[in-house]
Amino acid sequence: MTPGTDSGLLAPVWAGTGLGALVSDEAWLRAMVDVEAALARAQARLGVVPGSAAAVIESVARGDGVDLLEVAERARGAANPVVVLVERFTAAVAARDPAAAEYVHRGGTSQDILDSAAMVLSGRVLAVVEADLRRTGWALARLAAEHRNTPMAGRTLTQHAVPITFGLKAAGWLQLVLDAFERVSRVVLPAQLGGAAGTCASYVAYARLATGSPAGGGVELVRVFAEEAGLAEPVVPWHALRTPIADLGAACAFVAGALGKFGVDVQMMSRTEVGEVTEPAGEGRGVSSAMPQKRNPVLATLLVSAARQVPAYGSILVQSLVAEDERSAGGWHAEWQPLRESLRLTAGAARTAAELAEGLIAHPGRLRENLGLTGGSIVSERLNAELAEALGKANAKKLLARVARRAADEGRPFAETLAATPELANGLADRVPELLDPERYLGASADLTARVLTRAASLLA
Amino acid sequence: MTPGTDSGLLAPVWAGTGLGALVSDEAWLRAMVDVEAALARAQARLGVVPGSAAAVIESVARGDGVDLLEVAERARGAANPVVVLVERFTAAVAARDPAAAEYVHRGGTSQDILDSAAMVLSGRVLAVVEADLRRTGWALARLAAEHRNTPMAGRTLTQHAVPITFGLKAAGWLQLVLDAFERVSRVVLPAQLGGAAGTCASYVAYARLATGSPAGGGVELVRVFAEEAGLAEPVVPWHALRTPIADLGAACAFVAGALGKFGVDVQMMSRTEVGEVTEPAGEGRGVSSAMPQKRNPVLATLLVSAARQVPAYGSILVQSLVAEDERSAGGWHAEWQPLRESLRLTAGAARTAAELAEGLIAHPGRLRENLGLTGGSIVSERLNAELAEALGKANAKKLLARVARRAADEGRPFAETLAATPELANGLADRVPELLDPERYLGASADLTARVLTRAASLLA
Amino acid sequence: MTPGTDSGLLAPVWAGTGLGALVSDEAWLRAMVDVEAALARAQARLGVVPGSAAAVIESVARGDGVDLLEVAERARGAANPVVVLVERFTAAVAARDPAAAEYVHRGGTSQDILDSAAMVLSGRVLAVVEADLRRTGWALARLAAEHRNTPMAGRTLTQHAVPITFGLKAAGWLQLVLDAFERVSRVVLPAQLGGAAGTCASYVAYARLATGSPAGGGVELVRVFAEEAGLAEPVVPWHALRTPIADLGAACAFVAGALGKFGVDVQMMSRTEVGEVTEPAGEGRGVSSAMPQKRNPVLATLLVSAARQVPAYGSILVQSLVAEDERSAGGWHAEWQPLRESLRLTAGAARTAAELAEGLIAHPGRLRENLGLTGGSIVSERLNAELAEALGKANAKKLLARVARRAADEGRPFAETLAATPELANGLADRVPELLDPERYLGASADLTARVLTRAASLLA
Amino acid sequence: MTPGTDSGLLAPVWAGTGLGALVSDEAWLRAMVDVEAALARAQARLGVVPGSAAAVIESVARGDGVDLLEVAERARGAANPVVVLVERFTAAVAARDPAAAEYVHRGGTSQDILDSAAMVLSGRVLAVVEADLRRTGWALARLAAEHRNTPMAGRTLTQHAVPITFGLKAAGWLQLVLDAFERVSRVVLPAQLGGAAGTCASYVAYARLATGSPAGGGVELVRVFAEEAGLAEPVVPWHALRTPIADLGAACAFVAGALGKFGVDVQMMSRTEVGEVTEPAGEGRGVSSAMPQKRNPVLATLLVSAARQVPAYGSILVQSLVAEDERSAGGWHAEWQPLRESLRLTAGAARTAAELAEGLIAHPGRLRENLGLTGGSIVSERLNAELAEALGKANAKKLLARVARRAADEGRPFAETLAATPELANGLADRVPELLDPERYLGASADLTARVLTRAASLLA
Repeated sequence: MTPGTDSGLLAPVWAGTGLGALVSDEAWLRAMVDVEAALARAQARLGVVPGSAAAVIESVARGDGVDLLEVAERARGAANPVVVLVERFTAAVAARDPAAAEYVHRGGTSQDILDSAAMVLSGRVLAVVEADLRRTGWALARLAAEHRNTPMAGRTLTQHAVPITFGLKAAGWLQLVLDAFERVSRVVLPAQLGGAAGTCASYVAYARLATGSPAGGGVELVRVFAEEAGLAEPVVPWHALRTPIADLGAACAFVAGALGKFGVDVQMMSRTEVGEVTEPAGEGRGVSSAMPQKRNPVLATLLVSAARQVPAYGSILVQSLVAEDERSAGGWHAEWQPLRESLRLTAGAARTAAELAEGLIAHPGRLRENLGLTGGSIVSERLNAELAEALGKANAKKLLARVARRAADEGRPFAETLAATPELANGLADRVPELLDPERYLGASADLTARVLTRAASLLA
Repeated sequence: MTPGTDSGLLAPVWAGTGLGALVSDEAWLRAMVDVEAALARAQARLGVVPGSAAAVIESVARGDGVDLLEVAERARGAANPVVVLVERFTAAVAARDPAAAEYVHRGGTSQDILDSAAMVLSGRVLAVVEADLRRTGWALARLAAEHRNTPMAGRTLTQHAVPITFGLKAAGWLQLVLDAFERVSRVVLPAQLGGAAGTCASYVAYARLATGSPAGGGVELVRVFAEEAGLAEPVVPWHALRTPIADLGAACAFVAGALGKFGVDVQMMSRTEVGEVTEPAGEGRGVSSAMPQKRNPVLATLLVSAARQVPAYGSILVQSLVAEDERSAGGWHAEWQPLRESLRLTAGAARTAAELAEGLIAHPGRLRENLGLTGGSIVSERLNAELAEALGKANAKKLLARVARRAADEGRPFAETLAATPELANGLADRVPELLDPERYLGASADLTARVLTRAASLLA
Repeated sequence: MTPGTDSGLLAPVWAGTGLGALVSDEAWLRAMVDVEAALARAQARLGVVPGSAAAVIESVARGDGVDLLEVAERARGAANPVVVLVERFTAAVAARDPAAAEYVHRGGTSQDILDSAAMVLSGRVLAVVEADLRRTGWALARLAAEHRNTPMAGRTLTQHAVPITFGLKAAGWLQLVLDAFERVSRVVLPAQLGGAAGTCASYVAYARLATGSPAGGGVELVRVFAEEAGLAEPVVPWHALRTPIADLGAACAFVAGALGKFGVDVQMMSRTEVGEVTEPAGEGRGVSSAMPQKRNPVLATLLVSAARQVPAYGSILVQSLVAEDERSAGGWHAEWQPLRESLRLTAGAARTAAELAEGLIAHPGRLRENLGLTGGSIVSERLNAELAEALGKANAKKLLARVARRAADEGRPFAETLAATPELANGLADRVPELLDPERYLGASADLTARVLTRAASLLA
Repeated sequence: MTPGTDSGLLAPVWAGTGLGALVSDEAWLRAMVDVEAALARAQARLGVVPGSAAAVIESVARGDGVDLLEVAERARGAANPVVVLVERFTAAVAARDPAAAEYVHRGGTSQDILDSAAMVLSGRVLAVVEADLRRTGWALARLAAEHRNTPMAGRTLTQHAVPITFGLKAAGWLQLVLDAFERVSRVVLPAQLGGAAGTCASYVAYARLATGSPAGGGVELVRVFAEEAGLAEPVVPWHALRTPIADLGAACAFVAGALGKFGVDVQMMSRTEVGEVTEPAGEGRGVSSAMPQKRNPVLATLLVSAARQVPAYGSILVQSLVAEDERSAGGWHAEWQPLRESLRLTAGAARTAAELAEGLIAHPGRLRENLGLTGGSIVSERLNAELAEALGKANAKKLLARVARRAADEGRPFAETLAATPELANGLADRVPELLDPERYLGASADLTARVLTRAASLLA
């Protein structure tokens, strides 16, 4: 085993999903080499570099000639891994074709390579996140539609409030997934190309040396390079203008936070005393090392674990904006690992949410049972409205609070205590069973659920 | 003086700008009362509440009948200020018209009022922030245009790197201001209306009691209420779906971070040894309590002070997404003060940035002087490109590094040391003066500056 | 009402407790004036300032002659409020005795005054926090002792795990309160006195002018000033060495986090379906603006609201350590408001915890009822140990997992399903009732509870 | 290369130091296996497990029989890696001695193993951090002593303020290093042993089965286990009482922040225009991929990169305190990776600081040159004190501010402009050269430096 490895042992939210590999050291290294190849191709298209040299560079980039550990360990000298990487990569090209080696990293600066590679990797991760959010969205839409008329207890500040439907609950989760989806798809990932201080001066100089004109080295090169790297064209180099990093941090924090809501709700609903939902079964899933009877809501737990971490990483990433000079001494270097963590935790959370949403089992029996737990006091708000006509709003509320307190103190159902209340207007006494029926106090739940489903249909289609 | 006050003594970034009043306790209270009035108007439009009652509510809301301190202090009982506010406001309406008082907060829940008020206030703050970003943007655009050909030292990792222009520097600040402007204008501020658990059941119940039909209480009421409150229509109530709060946190953190970059650059450029820019003068500005000679870059300092705080508040706000049940017990309550801090710090920062941008004085003499400080080694990258043709890239770089080191060690100008270097190819020796002229190594600075100006013209117009 | 006020409307955790006044703008201002008086007294003791001047300064400081709002608003000019405060305070002294006015702020720098005042206020807040933690600790100790033999369900990952006692639960909360108490009492609050750049040069200069010797202006003055201000003597001035700020942030974050654990547990235990504890009743406490039956766990909610905020403020405060030069341009200014927020939220949380701990009502009936909810499977771990002897550990665990799953699927009690299991060794079948008795599987709960009580007795005495 | 690896490519602050290996997945895994062995040894000492079985377990633990990647990938099922690890480790023991395998993880729960392992690893890292802080401290002490009389410009809010000494500057860095050292050495790392829900019930049950008495399974076992694991004895199990995690987070954040101050000061002092210090040279250190002349302050940059990250991780770790129930569903799981990141970044920063402190080169010539840059206005504070006697404090300050402004505007030295000022009292005019000599305005710098050196001698000895 190699020293220094992190294969996800401490991050079960992405370990075992395969997603960690998207942003491993190896992936990062490979992306940097790919970026060097894209630069050579772009310069070749503009006549700044011989096509044959670009072809050799491309071909060596596709191979596997760089020792990762050495690059990582020697990164310390320059405070970034690109200097050593370029040295190693140039040597690998030189071994194939010494002339081509002269064209590696031509005009390039470390940050052009590392930032562009970060954007390439981020793009791959966001694509996976989008796909998993889509899966999650469809699964939740199905759940919302299926349960649009399944009543359950709504809870606020941990206490039963008024009835809702499980469909509306799922629609709420879906609404956040759609918000997350929108925020992810809105992130722009621009290529980075500016040379030592963002003026493109080195690229222009090489263009002039090769072609006699600066044209192949300034904004034109940036455009062509962005195309070759599969990235958006930036307005200007962003070495010290860290919008893409801040945006990635914010998008990841949003996704993780939004899925965290799904997670805590599933946790609350699967508490032993509540038992309204169960996570999908799976080989070895939810087991305990000690207790045979356990079936822990592990997927929800993984979602919560991500939601507790990513916002803090996001705060580091948005602070990257505070970058002095033309390249920050420390600000830039503080981005890399938090960005990787944000990306892989977010990807793991989205994958986990999809599994959870697709397999979540609701227990309508328990939903209904819990709804009845307070003997009707869960709809005392409705009674309030009815009684207000006769008694005035304030008096009605006081009366009902008294009844609810008495019922709780005496351990009798609210309905029973209410029926025995003399102040209850005659006309209402007869209607108590109807008025206390939670299913008749669902308000606009079905309409609201439908609105979210409509949005899902248009956004995820 | 009232106990418990905070008038900005500890927050000079917004104190004295007048912007703090936008989110003071009084503003918050008034917005909540306004929201109650908007609800009554909306219900009156739909026939759920008598028009006359709504008119009385409206008229009392415009008055000033609620004791702020009492509301704040009694907020503790319900863990939110709305319960007491509604009680006090109802009493004020009752004093005018007892019948109308029955229609106050009809079907309402605390969170509908507080959240809608928060959106109203946020909207007012964001409008001011947009206006100040616009001012900042135009001022920076002027600066960028004016100095598009003013060369200066580009710096990376604190050291002179290659030349840039002060125009490009200002264009970089502008680019971030435009990014901030876009992110602020993209924030959607929806009305909140859902009743106790987000089903609108209470509104529907009152609609049915008043009109015999549920129509005036569900999604239709939400739409009309949003209109009356001047807010966007939500897809569904968002009591536990905190997207707007997360978005506000992210937008504020972005703005503060982006302006922080402007701040740190101005700080670096105005250090005593650098002296390239001066902050606009102002009565009492930049003075010290001890040192007569001092003229501190206080506006930049205020920008940095905001940039150090808002990202942390943003991390609290995005964590609001992790809200259990239909209303979070603690999550919701943890939003209010960080949201206020974010808004007023951001507003103060935007105002400060406008002042700074409009008055910033550049010193072209010092810019040029600093550029020449290293005797030409600031363009050694260019020489590298030229020499690479003759010596190969790697050898050229080694040679130049050696020359630079020797020049530094001997305290002689780089140009002089270079001229004395035998390895210098004959052809190049003659061209040294030209090759070492920083103004001939500005790359695409002017083009890049122009790109940002074009974006500004289209975005801020 | 004054514009810009914040009287706690958005912070119910401290609003209404009176604690906000400890760190109000007024308190801060008064503390700064007190610090000026302490400086004058210290200089008088060392012969640097005439005793009569110090007496006048002292007497004016005790009065109320400075307009807060003006100071706050003009703070912007110097980026800190001290410059204007000194001007106003000097004028107030001059109005009484022009000669004495010459001795105000003699040798002083803004940061000496503001930092020392911050330490004075922090000391007052920490004293209150300590007292409230002590109250909380004693109340929890009583609870732990009282319930040392009250069994209840232990829960891990939201599911019933094995039995614990409510006494051990309370002992856990107590343990954290003791940890918090220790961390608070460990915080050192040093005086700040260093002059413009931390060398005490100005104090030394005035000492020399007055006494012909530097002795009354250097480390000796720092020592005497610390005494007069009631603060610890610093090793050196700490204008740019922000240990006390970082420590305060960490201590507050710890307290808020520790009490947050108490809060979430009370929330979980008071959920409608669980009902094991109830918060102390109080006039208007826990009411809802909409639902008459509601009795929300508001104290726990306030604890959680603080725990969600203070850690983020703490992260700003520890970053204060990264302070460039002899006084940071922005770092220092970013401390003040987060420090105030941390202090008042923490003080409010400690007060709230005391109220909650002193009034918390446990319901032994519900505790026992919930413990029996799974029909004995909560002690299947114990069975595992017993069966392991006969079947081997792994086989035993598989068997019990199968039984638990079957019981859950068929909705029968675990005990019943187990009794019907043929694989159960004969000897064990008879012992099933005993083995499934949760009260016989409490491990070392009583011993562990006693250990925490012993610690409490020694720490809080 | 294995997928998912992280060998430090993105974290140059610790990559290449060898310190990453202290908390690699492999180290974590090995520590967990060691903890299992310590548990078996402890149980053997108390007669609960046969000594022979413990010996076999110990011996297998010393071997290398567990496939890391498999454990990491399957961790997802239980949301923690221990369940699979125990399974694999049990199999490895069984392969050697089936009877001994029955005694693996006897009574254990996942959290006992993972938490204890985390403490073991944290202890190893903190020991290295202490050693490196000691090295750093001694090096800074040498620097402070050497330069106790080297004057330089003190700077506040980026501007020259009054003179200080480089010795006092270094003493300030040292003071923070000593504070950091104290905070690290104060951290208590307790063993974790509580069984499924912190009652030790399973350990007690096995003790009773083996010995007929509960004595070998409760607090006695905890004590002996702590000894065997080389950890502190806890008061009670802390599965949901996360003090050690919060403390580690706070300690790491403090260290990283404190060293960040050293970093930013070195950066400021090595800016091209300032040039007062140079980082130690090293093969490949400070080089740029583009610019031959560059010698970047990379060690300082690495320090700053850590200081920007660790506080955010610390905020996650202190939030771990908010852990519901007897084991948090998500809170616990969110600790592991941030803890690892905090530890390795902090270790890397301490190592880097030692390198930087031991090799930092000061340039007394540049220090002196910069001190003279303002032609004496850097001591205008001193003049203020002298003139105050004659003109009154306020008038003197106004006069000097006017002179300073005029000097700056006319680009003449302050001394010259001052000499030409008619208002200057006759007696003073002669003394101007003396009064403007920065070396005569160093206040108590030497005394203060000595105080820190005394502290260092006592703390680091």
